[in-house]
Amino acid sequence: MLVLVTYDVVTKTAIGQKRLRKVAKTCENYGLRVQNSVFECVVDATQFKQLQLALQGIIDKEEDSLRFYQLGNNYKSKVIHVGAKETFNVEDTLIL
Amino acid sequence: MLVLVTYDVVTKTAIGQKRLRKVAKTCENYGLRVQNSVFECVVDATQFKQLQLALQGIIDKEEDSLRFYQLGNNYKSKVIHVGAKETFNVEDTLIL
Repeated sequence: MLVLVTYDVVTKTAIGQKRLRKVAKTCENYGLRVQNSVFECVVDATQFKQLQLALQGIIDKEEDSLRFYQLGNNYKSKVIHVGAKETFNVEDTLIL
Repeated sequence: MLVLVTYDVVTKTAIGQKRLRKVAKTCENYGLRVQNSVFECVVDATQFKQLQLALQGIIDKEEDSLRFYQLGNNYKSKVIHVGAKETFNVEDTLIL
């Protein structure tokens, strides 16, 4: 299923900036960055749980905001992109 | 239906900053800001089309990125929030 992860991390302090980097780094392990604070992750239920736990362990719950949107398996028709930085299909094979 | 709008607007110039303000202002007419660059809008098909056209008329398609995610009508169980700035139910009555 496609899970969209969006976040606001308060980066006024060095600790906040570190949290932001860790959140992005963690999301990169599960999906694709489509905007600055938006990742699209194709995951199964177990991976989704792992991702939630990992991110909850990083953010400051008093300061930062984290949202997950579950778009299911038939998500391709549900996403519209306009403008710069169009992403590739997250399920396409990655050629290294 | 719930439509999620996410955007990255390049704000290196005054014109970019103006675009960002206009994008946010337009989204405010259709829904609720849940994060800095994320709005949740409960709209019908006509309103969704209007919103898309309005935003496409504001952004610089070479620089900015705009994404729409359609979460359908049964979206409440599809959204998970963690941390600060929990939003109110977008369909609750707004008391002025």
